[in-house]
Amino acid sequence: MKARVYVTLKGGVLDPQGKAIHHALEGLGFAGVNDVRAGKMIELDLADGTSDADIDAMCSKLLANTVIENYRIEKLG
Amino acid sequence: MKARVYVTLKGGVLDPQGKAIHHALEGLGFAGVNDVRAGKMIELDLADGTSDADIDAMCSKLLANTVIENYRIEKLG
Repeated sequence: MKARVYVTLKGGVLDPQGKAIHHALEGLGFAGVNDVRAGKMIELDLADGTSDADIDAMCSKLLANTVIENYRIEKLG
Repeated sequence: MKARVYVTLKGGVLDPQGKAIHHALEGLGFAGVNDVRAGKMIELDLADGTSDADIDAMCSKLLANTVIENYRIEKLG
């Protein structure tokens, strides 16, 4: 079973990586970029039968820092 | 207009970040994790009318290293 976890910074949190990408895109001549936010994606290859609660625990204990980050789990079956 | 870019390592490329996450999950007692691959997600807030070709150029010129990485673009309208 595969699952993908998307980790993004919460709304008010400064995102220097996103700012750097934004600046670099403008430097390359791409106009019309209003904002850039950088996040992480983690692809998990799990044993069949891994419970949703287990995946959620992996996220909250290790994959995301829930003080400043949100996470979203997508199961690929 | 919003778009998300997902950047993942190509198949044969070693992924030390994924390996570290895998090891840490096992250390926390999560059994049944077969493999972990780490990737990036970049959320772009673009001016309306930005062409698909422009977004593709952003990816190939800056966001992804196409020698070792694949990218996928998801437009959110």
